[in-house]
Amino acid sequence: MNQEYIIPNAWSIIEKGWRPEFVKSSESLFSIGNGAMGQRANFEETYTGDTFQGSYVAGVYYPDKTKVGWWKNGYPEYFAKVLNAPNFIGIDVFIDGEALDLATYDQVHHYKQELNMKEGWLERSFNIELTDDKEIAIKTRRFLSLDKDELGVINYSITAVKGDMRISFQPYIDAGITNEDSNWDDAFWEVEELTSKDHQAFIRSRTNKTNFYVCTYMQSELYKDGEHVQYADPFDQNDTVIRHKVATQLEEGETATLLKYAGYTSSLNHEHFELMDAAKAAISHAVNKGYQQLLQDQIDAWADIWAMADITIEGDLKAQQGIRFNIFQLNQTYLGKDARLNIGPKGFTGEKYGGSTYWDTEAYCIPFYMATKDQHVARNLLTYRYEQLDKAIENAEKLGFSNGAALYPMVTMNGEESHNEWEITFEEIHRNGAMVFAIYNYVRYTGDYDYIPEMGLEVMIAIARFWHQRSTYSSRVDKYMILGVTGPNEYENNVNNNWYTNYIAKWCIEQCVEHIKKVKSGHEDDYHRVIGLTSLTDGEISSWLEVAHNMYMPYDKELGIYLQQDGFLDKELIPVSELKAVHRPINQKWSWDRILRSCYIKQADVLQGFYFFEDHFSKEQLEKHFDFYEPLTVHESSLSPCVHSIQAAKLDRMDQAYEFYLRTSRLDLDDYNKEVEEGCHITSMAGTWMSIVEGFGGFKIVNDMPSFETRLPKQWKSFSFKINFRDQILTVNVSDSATTVQLQGYQSQDIILNGKKLTLEPLAVNA
Amino acid sequence: MNQEYIIPNAWSIIEKGWRPEFVKSSESLFSIGNGAMGQRANFEETYTGDTFQGSYVAGVYYPDKTKVGWWKNGYPEYFAKVLNAPNFIGIDVFIDGEALDLATYDQVHHYKQELNMKEGWLERSFNIELTDDKEIAIKTRRFLSLDKDELGVINYSITAVKGDMRISFQPYIDAGITNEDSNWDDAFWEVEELTSKDHQAFIRSRTNKTNFYVCTYMQSELYKDGEHVQYADPFDQNDTVIRHKVATQLEEGETATLLKYAGYTSSLNHEHFELMDAAKAAISHAVNKGYQQLLQDQIDAWADIWAMADITIEGDLKAQQGIRFNIFQLNQTYLGKDARLNIGPKGFTGEKYGGSTYWDTEAYCIPFYMATKDQHVARNLLTYRYEQLDKAIENAEKLGFSNGAALYPMVTMNGEESHNEWEITFEEIHRNGAMVFAIYNYVRYTGDYDYIPEMGLEVMIAIARFWHQRSTYSSRVDKYMILGVTGPNEYENNVNNNWYTNYIAKWCIEQCVEHIKKVKSGHEDDYHRVIGLTSLTDGEISSWLEVAHNMYMPYDKELGIYLQQDGFLDKELIPVSELKAVHRPINQKWSWDRILRSCYIKQADVLQGFYFFEDHFSKEQLEKHFDFYEPLTVHESSLSPCVHSIQAAKLDRMDQAYEFYLRTSRLDLDDYNKEVEEGCHITSMAGTWMSIVEGFGGFKIVNDMPSFETRLPKQWKSFSFKINFRDQILTVNVSDSATTVQLQGYQSQDIILNGKKLTLEPLAVNA
Repeated sequence: MNQEYIIPNAWSIIEKGWRPEFVKSSESLFSIGNGAMGQRANFEETYTGDTFQGSYVAGVYYPDKTKVGWWKNGYPEYFAKVLNAPNFIGIDVFIDGEALDLATYDQVHHYKQELNMKEGWLERSFNIELTDDKEIAIKTRRFLSLDKDELGVINYSITAVKGDMRISFQPYIDAGITNEDSNWDDAFWEVEELTSKDHQAFIRSRTNKTNFYVCTYMQSELYKDGEHVQYADPFDQNDTVIRHKVATQLEEGETATLLKYAGYTSSLNHEHFELMDAAKAAISHAVNKGYQQLLQDQIDAWADIWAMADITIEGDLKAQQGIRFNIFQLNQTYLGKDARLNIGPKGFTGEKYGGSTYWDTEAYCIPFYMATKDQHVARNLLTYRYEQLDKAIENAEKLGFSNGAALYPMVTMNGEESHNEWEITFEEIHRNGAMVFAIYNYVRYTGDYDYIPEMGLEVMIAIARFWHQRSTYSSRVDKYMILGVTGPNEYENNVNNNWYTNYIAKWCIEQCVEHIKKVKSGHEDDYHRVIGLTSLTDGEISSWLEVAHNMYMPYDKELGIYLQQDGFLDKELIPVSELKAVHRPINQKWSWDRILRSCYIKQADVLQGFYFFEDHFSKEQLEKHFDFYEPLTVHESSLSPCVHSIQAAKLDRMDQAYEFYLRTSRLDLDDYNKEVEEGCHITSMAGTWMSIVEGFGGFKIVNDMPSFETRLPKQWKSFSFKINFRDQILTVNVSDSATTVQLQGYQSQDIILNGKKLTLEPLAVNA
Repeated sequence: MNQEYIIPNAWSIIEKGWRPEFVKSSESLFSIGNGAMGQRANFEETYTGDTFQGSYVAGVYYPDKTKVGWWKNGYPEYFAKVLNAPNFIGIDVFIDGEALDLATYDQVHHYKQELNMKEGWLERSFNIELTDDKEIAIKTRRFLSLDKDELGVINYSITAVKGDMRISFQPYIDAGITNEDSNWDDAFWEVEELTSKDHQAFIRSRTNKTNFYVCTYMQSELYKDGEHVQYADPFDQNDTVIRHKVATQLEEGETATLLKYAGYTSSLNHEHFELMDAAKAAISHAVNKGYQQLLQDQIDAWADIWAMADITIEGDLKAQQGIRFNIFQLNQTYLGKDARLNIGPKGFTGEKYGGSTYWDTEAYCIPFYMATKDQHVARNLLTYRYEQLDKAIENAEKLGFSNGAALYPMVTMNGEESHNEWEITFEEIHRNGAMVFAIYNYVRYTGDYDYIPEMGLEVMIAIARFWHQRSTYSSRVDKYMILGVTGPNEYENNVNNNWYTNYIAKWCIEQCVEHIKKVKSGHEDDYHRVIGLTSLTDGEISSWLEVAHNMYMPYDKELGIYLQQDGFLDKELIPVSELKAVHRPINQKWSWDRILRSCYIKQADVLQGFYFFEDHFSKEQLEKHFDFYEPLTVHESSLSPCVHSIQAAKLDRMDQAYEFYLRTSRLDLDDYNKEVEEGCHITSMAGTWMSIVEGFGGFKIVNDMPSFETRLPKQWKSFSFKINFRDQILTVNVSDSATTVQLQGYQSQDIILNGKKLTLEPLAVNA
C-alpha cells in the first residue's frame, strides 16, 4: 500500500540504507524547525540527485502576482507565499579534491538517518568506499536551537576509515535561492550586502515588495580528533554566496569535524540596520556556550515540551511513533511565542499551499495548543485573527459586503486573501464560523472570559454581520437560506444550504448576541467601546436574530438526517467500499465534474458540525449521521480521519476508530496520500492529538469541568496523555485494568471520569 | 451611454476627425477579411500611439500551454489559439527624411476613415500640415481580394498639397510578431527563410508545435501622377523583416502612389515547399490584372454576396447600417468554402477567446449561412463537427465517459478542448445539444436528409450515449436527472437539472432514435455501416429511451413555469430594472459568488429552449416564461438580445423587440459592452440577422414550407430580406401597407404568409 521504510521506534524517526528514491520523502519527514525557522532535511554537502531544497523563516513572505486562466471579480491581485529563504546549512566537502556527492557513489554503506524527537536533533551517518584503499565515515548532526531561535548548529565529522587523505570543507551561505512554487518566476529576494570577516560571514537580503530584511550568517570551527584547529580565513564570494575554505590532512583513523554555527536574524525582530549585530550576538552566544552545552540546552528545552505534551502508548510501537511525530512537528512549527505567526499547513517542511493560515488553526490546532501549552499561546492564536479583523472587513467589502461585515480569508499570511479559486475563496465561507467557534472553545477551556470583551466580541459582531448579509430570504419556504457555498467537503462547490454552514451561521449570530448581553452586564466599558466602534444598534441585532431563528436546515424526514446540502439525496449513493480501486483516490482519477456530481465526501462536513456541536445532538443522532455519511467519505483530506476516529470511538466502534487513528497519525510517515515529498501535513497533526485525547480519552469540558470518557483500543496495553487545564495539569492513564487521572496542580480540581464526578486533590491519584 | 462616433450611413462605416482615443476601437470596427485571412484596421505607416496590431490567417493556430491557478483533472494541457500572423500591410513613409506618424502631429485635417461594405474596401484619408509651408494629403485604400483569397491590395497615395518634398516609401513584411494573448510568452512562430529579389519579397515562417507554414509576400509598384515609375531594388532585411525602399521627388500638386500587392500562402492549401511559387503566382495574378481590375473584381464579388444576403430597412439609417455591418462582417469571416474552417467569436478582428469554434456556430450562425448561401456552406459547417467526432469522443473519455460517448468541446480549433474553467469546460455540456439541433435544423431547412445517414447519425449516436451516461437516476423522485451543469446562462455554475440542458438531452436521444429508425428503413447500407461502427444494440437504445422518457424537468406548478434549475425560486427575484446603475454590468461590478447566488441571467437559458423548440410550446407558455425570465436577464452576453428580440416580436411587443434589435445590431458600432477595442462580436451578428428574419419577418419552416409571420417596427417604413430555400430565392418585403413575397426560382413554391398558405410561381409576387 503505502511506503514503509521508516523504522518503528518510540522516540526517533529512522531510516537505514541508502535509497536515493526516498531522498525527497525523507527531506520532508526529517525536517527540523524551532518555531522561528525551519528546514527540510536537505544534505549539507552537494547532492546532485533529485532533491527539493527548502529553508524557511517564519513570517517572511512574498506577495506573488495571482495566476489564473480566467479572472473573476473579487480575486486577490496578490497571493502571499511562504518563501524559500537563503540556505545556511551548506557545507561542500572535498576528499583529495573530489567533491563529496552521495549521488555519485556505488559503495555507500551503513547509511542511517535519525530524527531524534526526544532531544530535537537530526543525524545522518554513512560510510563511503571511495576506492579499494580509501574509505571514509561521515556523521553529521544538526539542530535548530529552541533556546536561541536565531541559531542553527551543525556538527559535520569525517573519519578516515581507510587510508590518508586531504579533507576540505567549504561551509557557505547562499542567498541565491528561488521558490519551486512561483507564479511568474519573479525574483523574491534581493541580496543587499555580503560581508565576510574574521571567519564570519553575513548576507543581508531583502524580500521584494514586502521588504523583509533577513541576515543569514555563519561561523565555522575546525576540530581534529576533538582538538580545536586554527585555520586561515580564505573565502570566495559572488553576488549571492559566501564560501569559506577550511582544509586539513587526515591520517587513517583520524576524524576532522567542522562545527558550523549559522542562522538568520530578521527584521521581524530587529531594526534592519541592526541585523548584522544581532547575528554577531547569536554567534557569540554559540561560541561561548560551545557545541556540547548548546546540545544540552536543546535536550532540556525539548524535555520541557515533552513533559507537558507527551502521549505514551504501550504495546503499539508504530502508534507511539506516530503520535510523537505529530506532537514533535507541531512544536517545531509553532511554539506560540509570537502572535504574528501561525501554523502553516506544511509548516517548515514545504512550500505548498502558499500562505500560512487556514481555518485548520481554529478548528484543529487550537485545542492542541490549549491543552499542551500555557494559556497565552492559544490566546496569541486568537489575537492573530483579531489583529487581522480590518483586513477581513476589507476582504468582505471586495465581495460586496458592507457595514463592517467580515469574511476571514481562506488562506492568509497577513490578513489578505491568498487563494484564488472562486469556489473556495468566495464560497468556502464556513471558515468564518471556525473563528467564532475558536473563541467559544478557548473561553470554555481556559475560563478567560476577558478575551471576549477585549477582542473577541468585535470579531463576533463582524462575523454576525457577514452571516446576516450573506443570507437570502426564500419566500417559497419562508426561511433564510445561504446560497452558493462550498462546505468543508470541498468535493461539492456552489451548493445551496450546506447544513454545516447554515448551522454554524445561525450559531455564530446567537453566540454573538449572547455575548453582547454578557459584556453589557459585566464589562460595561468594553461594551461601550465596542458599540461605539461598531455603531451596533438593537435594530440590527433584531435583524440578525430574525435570520438566525429562521435559518433553513436541509433535513430529510424519512431518513431522519440533516442533508449535507439541498438536493444531496438526488445523487446516486453508492458507498465508497463499492468503488473499484482503480478509481481511487478520486481526486487523482476523476475529472472535477465527476467528483462534484458524485456523492463522495472529501472530509467531515455534516459530521464536522456534529464534532463541533457534540452536545447539541444525541448519540443516536450521531450514530445515524455517521452511518449515513461516513460510508460515502473518501477521506482525501488530511483533516478527515481524525474527526471520524473521534466519532467512531464515541460510538464504541473501536476497530474503526483505531484504523482512522493510524491513518491520521502515520499519514506522512506511511505516505498515505503519496505526496509527502512536497512536505508534511502539519495542521492535521493536531487532529491526531485530538483523536487520542478526545477520541480514546473522551476528553471534553462539561460544566466547566474536564470530563473523560475513556476507551482503550484493543491493540494497546495502555496509553496516557496530559491536559493543562487552567494551569492545573491532569495526567490521564488508561490501561486495560483501570483509568486513572492524576493532578499536578495547586488546588483541588473537579473532573468527570467515565460519567462520575470526582474531586482531585493536588498530586492525588483517583481511579 | 455608449460611443457614438460612427457616422450613420447605409453602406459604409465612417469616422471623421482624428481622435487617437478611438484608434483601437476603429481598428476593430474597420477590420477587413476575406474568409481566408483578415486584419484589424491597423495603419500601414508607423503609428507610435496606442494600437492593437492584428493579422490572422484562417485555420492557423498555436496550442498554448494551459495556464491555471489550480489544476483540475480533465483540463486540456494545451489551448489552441488564434495566432497573430506576420504583418504584410506595413508601409513606412518618410517625408524629407522624417517618418510619417499620426501620433506626432498637431495639425491633422480632414481625417476620414471609411469601410465600404458594398464594395469591400477600407479607405483612410487625411491632410497633415508638416510646417507652415509644407502640407501633404494622404489617401490609402486597401482590400483583401475575395476573388483570389491569398491576395491583399494596398493603394497608398501622397499628394504634395503645399511645397515640394522628397517622399520615401518603405513597404515591408514583418514576421516578428507576437500575440497579446499568450500564456507563457512562448514564441509562436519561427522564421525559416527570407528572400528578396526582383522587387518581390517572401518570408516563410512556421508555427511552433503545429507546424503550419505560411509564406508572407509582397511586391510594390510606384506611380507618379498615375504614371508607372521604375525604381531600383534596394532592400534591407533582418531576422524577421524585409523592407524595400522606394523614393521619389514631388513638386507641389504632384501625387506619388505606392501600390502594394501582398498576402499569404499557407500550408493549409499548398505543400510547404511550394509556398513561394504559390506566392509568386498570386503576385503575377495581381500584376496582370492591375489595381483597377482587382478593385472591380472585388466590387463584383461583394455584389454577388449582397445580391443574396442584403437586408434593406427604410426609414431608419442606424438600423440599416447596423444590419449591413453584421452581414458584412459575417461574410468577411466565413464564406463556407473550406470545411476545415469555422466562425471565431472575434473573426479576424481580435485574438480574444482563443479557439475559433463555439456552440455559437450551431445555434446562431448556421441559420444565417443556410439562408444566404448555397446549401453546401451549412453542410460544411456540419461536416466540420463530423470530422471532429473522434476528438469529441476522446474529450469525453478524458472526463470518464466510455463506449463512444462524445462531448464536443466548448471552444476548439482542431476538435480538442481549448477552454479551462471547470464550470464551463466540464459542465457547460448543453453545447452537445446544439450539435444535434444544427443537424435537425439543417435537414429541416434544406431537405438534405442524406446528411443524416452519411454523417449526422454517428454524431447523434455519440451524443445520445453521452446524455445517457451523464444522467443520474434519482430514486427520490424516480426520474433521471442531470446534476452539476452550467446552462447557457453562465451566471449559474454547477447547478442541478438545468431545464434547458435536461430538455435538449431528452430531445437529442429521441431525435437519435427516430433517425436510427428512418435510416434503417431508408438507407440500409449506411445503417449497417453505422451500426457496425458503433456496435449499437437495441438494448442500448432502450436504455437511452428509459432515460429520455423519464427525464426530470424542474417545474413550478403554482407559477406554471419551467425552472431554470433546481432551487431557482429560492433566490431573491428582484427585476433588473430595480438594480441601481452602479451595479451594472454585474460582471464588472460584482464578485463571482454574488453573481452566482443572484437571480440574474446572462443570456437566454430557459428561453433559449423556447427559441429552439418554439413549436413545442404555446404562445401563452412563451409569454409566461418570457415575462418571468426576461425581467431577470441582464443581457451581458452578445448572444442575448437577438433571441429576446425574436421572442418579443412574436409576442407583438414591438418596442421591446426593436430595442433589443438595436442592441444586437449596433453592439459593436455603439460599443454597448465597452470592449470593442478587443475585436467585434462576430458570431452574435448572425443573431442580428435572425432577429430581423425570424423576429420581424417571422420566418420559420412549417411542414417543409417557408412560413412568414411579418411585423413592421413602427420606426421603419419598410424592410426586406431574402431567403435561399432549397435553391429557390424568396424576397420578402414588409411595408406598412403590405407584405409581399417574391420568388426567383425554377419551380413553384408553397409558402405560408401570415397564416395563409400560398403557392408562388417563379418570379410572381403575392400579397
